[in-house]
Amino acid sequence: MEMGKKNWVFCDGYLPPHGDNPEFEGHDALMLTNLNKEKATIELTFLFEDKDPETGIVVELDGMRTTCVRLDHPLGDRGLMLGESVQFTVWVKSDLPICACYGRLDVRQPNMAYYSVTGYSF
Amino acid sequence: MEMGKKNWVFCDGYLPPHGDNPEFEGHDALMLTNLNKEKATIELTFLFEDKDPETGIVVELDGMRTTCVRLDHPLGDRGLMLGESVQFTVWVKSDLPICACYGRLDVRQPNMAYYSVTGYSF
Amino acid sequence: MEMGKKNWVFCDGYLPPHGDNPEFEGHDALMLTNLNKEKATIELTFLFEDKDPETGIVVELDGMRTTCVRLDHPLGDRGLMLGESVQFTVWVKSDLPICACYGRLDVRQPNMAYYSVTGYSF
Amino acid sequence: MEMGKKNWVFCDGYLPPHGDNPEFEGHDALMLTNLNKEKATIELTFLFEDKDPETGIVVELDGMRTTCVRLDHPLGDRGLMLGESVQFTVWVKSDLPICACYGRLDVRQPNMAYYSVTGYSF
Repeated sequence: MEMGKKNWVFCDGYLPPHGDNPEFEGHDALMLTNLNKEKATIELTFLFEDKDPETGIVVELDGMRTTCVRLDHPLGDRGLMLGESVQFTVWVKSDLPICACYGRLDVRQPNMAYYSVTGYSF
Repeated sequence: MEMGKKNWVFCDGYLPPHGDNPEFEGHDALMLTNLNKEKATIELTFLFEDKDPETGIVVELDGMRTTCVRLDHPLGDRGLMLGESVQFTVWVKSDLPICACYGRLDVRQPNMAYYSVTGYSF
Repeated sequence: MEMGKKNWVFCDGYLPPHGDNPEFEGHDALMLTNLNKEKATIELTFLFEDKDPETGIVVELDGMRTTCVRLDHPLGDRGLMLGESVQFTVWVKSDLPICACYGRLDVRQPNMAYYSVTGYSF
Repeated sequence: MEMGKKNWVFCDGYLPPHGDNPEFEGHDALMLTNLNKEKATIELTFLFEDKDPETGIVVELDGMRTTCVRLDHPLGDRGLMLGESVQFTVWVKSDLPICACYGRLDVRQPNMAYYSVTGYSF
């Protein structure tokens, strides 16, 4: 039984502005979970509306661990910045089956708004 | 391995009123992503509660690109308008497997509310 | 190719209080879509934490139509009322494959909160 | 036909602070539904970013019943507390196929924010 999938695609990536409140900083993030015993090597590819994809962002994740990859921070060795208010898709490719989800916290108005995605069943 | 699905159905389409704030315009939208190398031709069909479907809205999407189709704007060559506060389903049919999601931003009250759907795993 | 599934389960049913604003009435609802040409006959079963299920609520849905079943209204011939603030699961069983989703609008606080579920891919 | 799945994974577990309003207590929870006739025995495992998993939290669920497991309360015989503002994944393993979803209510700001996941189709 494979404990997850090797490919995950989140079509509605979008970095909201950070806002001024450090406790409620606007951001988006990928949550990745590795239910295997071995370390997983995960590659992120970002697709856009009108330019070529950015690829080769690598994340390593130990077995039986979860991680939260902030997409508003510099990504990978070359410090890729996606930029605010850019529509993108993130494609998660892993050498081992993993579980993943995407979340966004938008704080542009006085109250935050969550944007969430699903759990995965296998 | 097929990188997506040829059919996507979103059952809870509904255009919220636009509101007065151009930065937080109420809207809904389809996000479509083509992970293939070739261009995908995508047809949208809209189903309603008490009238016949509207079909034949065509979207072309280059390989390795994403697009955001605003459903509150005129759609296709004939400028189909769905209208506010109408319950609808959108059926996305593509000649190539694609990934899709649907989102809505509702600004009728002082703070926005997100309505979101899932990423797709294959 | 089956255009949907015959069984849908939504595990987090919960009727929020209606509130006082008729434009933003708190409610939850099932959106059901029939992509077949023929009429579908759909049965709803409600499961609870500490009592036997309620079953036999029947909805008929013409081909190529969508419907929105308000779960805060009396349901079926016997006028079943679920009641506010009761945790329930709704199990949708259809004789033909259909698509479905569940949504909730909570207005207990000054701004509404959406609770949404996913579109279905086949 | 199996009425659910034996494994469910929710990757974005996070306990928001409780807040001061008992009617809108911040929390997160698992909703579990057993569509079988027999009782299901369900084990919860929690995975973290930088420590070993916690496992062996057992929930029993009668047939044709649903339950809501509050994750901000002490869990299992040993009273496991996850703690606020900790990123975790919850892995639900059941001896019988079940349906599940995860929800969070965040009340850190003047209006609540829902975080929701999907229904499951089989």
